[in-house]
Amino acid sequence: MKPFRAKLDAAVRRSGSLLCIGLDPNIESFPAHLSSRDPYHAILEFNRQIIGATQDLVSAYKPNLGFYVAHGAPGLQALAETRALIPDDIPVILDCKIGDFAATSSAYARGLFEEWGFDAITISPYMGEDGLAPLMADPGRGVFVLCKTSNPGSCEFQDLRIDSPLQEERLFERVARRSLSWDEQNAATVGLVVGATYPEHLRMVRSLCPNQPILMPGIGTQSGDVAAALEAGLDSNGLGLIPTSSRAILYAGDGTDFAEHARSVAQSTVDALNAHR
Amino acid sequence: MKPFRAKLDAAVRRSGSLLCIGLDPNIESFPAHLSSRDPYHAILEFNRQIIGATQDLVSAYKPNLGFYVAHGAPGLQALAETRALIPDDIPVILDCKIGDFAATSSAYARGLFEEWGFDAITISPYMGEDGLAPLMADPGRGVFVLCKTSNPGSCEFQDLRIDSPLQEERLFERVARRSLSWDEQNAATVGLVVGATYPEHLRMVRSLCPNQPILMPGIGTQSGDVAAALEAGLDSNGLGLIPTSSRAILYAGDGTDFAEHARSVAQSTVDALNAHR
Repeated sequence: MKPFRAKLDAAVRRSGSLLCIGLDPNIESFPAHLSSRDPYHAILEFNRQIIGATQDLVSAYKPNLGFYVAHGAPGLQALAETRALIPDDIPVILDCKIGDFAATSSAYARGLFEEWGFDAITISPYMGEDGLAPLMADPGRGVFVLCKTSNPGSCEFQDLRIDSPLQEERLFERVARRSLSWDEQNAATVGLVVGATYPEHLRMVRSLCPNQPILMPGIGTQSGDVAAALEAGLDSNGLGLIPTSSRAILYAGDGTDFAEHARSVAQSTVDALNAHR
Repeated sequence: MKPFRAKLDAAVRRSGSLLCIGLDPNIESFPAHLSSRDPYHAILEFNRQIIGATQDLVSAYKPNLGFYVAHGAPGLQALAETRALIPDDIPVILDCKIGDFAATSSAYARGLFEEWGFDAITISPYMGEDGLAPLMADPGRGVFVLCKTSNPGSCEFQDLRIDSPLQEERLFERVARRSLSWDEQNAATVGLVVGATYPEHLRMVRSLCPNQPILMPGIGTQSGDVAAALEAGLDSNGLGLIPTSSRAILYAGDGTDFAEHARSVAQSTVDALNAHR
């Protein structure tokens, strides 16, 4: 088993939880005592409390780059320090959906894995394998390839039927099939992103990719059917699926005790997930 | 004419140049007197000299986020200060190839346009229109949608034939057609990214999208045929095409006079482009 996948499975077993919390700090949704501070301090303190209150309940954390870029260089400094707050045995997946030319991807790989210390990142397949290869070269890391995303408009391109030697194939299925080869041919763990909001698509991806980890947004505010999604997406060992929730947990409370409310919703989410494992 | 497009055309007319220089700082390629400094100071000084030596020769600058992310938070600080070094009348396009859920795209839009002050960004279409909409809402800004990229592997997904009411349609053509609607329906200027390395694809995109600006990598180190690309990609006014070059210009020299060498190659590139306009 590749090291990133082993780290992920160990975190699931230790915590007894599949849940990944998305660290997506939206200052407008922060409790008033934090939203009045400067963005760097507000984000760092918010994340510090969320991580402190939930770290025994998660299999991973997933900060999304956009919510840090929103606040300029100080936001990125807060991201670097947030990474450092997370215990070493919890995988941290940067949600950045990048995909570029090989030379640029090499720069991203050096940065995001070595300099920033992320365990894994999300990547977009549109530019093709040659651009993604440098992101899949590090044996200790993981990438999650966007396949079928949880948003309503994901059908626009991802569900297009493509010309194929197979009887019928959609773009997201081609991406899934290619990711299987990428996982076999590269050192890094290559997983996929599939939304909980599309359980039939998830079932198809799992049948094409029986052993790859699947990052699954859409169980919180986006309200996918948890039972259907788990049944469709877990691997044969009851692992390999990383349901992620962000807003529903982060903004459960709006007072100085927001982190306790976040923990309470995280615990209910874990219980709901475990009821269907 | 939308404001970003007007700013771009004005910069082309003022400079007499279509050329966009990619500000992709790779410290390993820097002159020795800079590569020995810390990344923040090395990048900032390198960019300062490149911008100083070339600003009268360009229609735009295009920093790629990956080369700044490579150096952690100090790299991002260098990006913010690089942006501030560029005169207000030269458009600055951040090459970041993002595309996310609407809530995240809103955070990116606030950040990249308002906080960082970029005039335009590159975006990836894979997630679909609903996720991209917040990035296309600002009337003063532009987005360039990845359509047919210049890398050898761009055929993998972008050239797939898709099921279509048209006689024949490939994925990049669908993206081009959709971008035309997006440009009509959104406040921002919506352009495309098409590589100079594929002049026939470029010709097709220009016929589908007669009036949108096209960002065209692949004329420098990637060695596309400049004459064929210009003939295929310019609009009916001889504008609307933004050829970009990065490494061939940035690393033309490796001594303390590197910026003079960069200017010299930039000037030859402008001359070569103008010979075919």
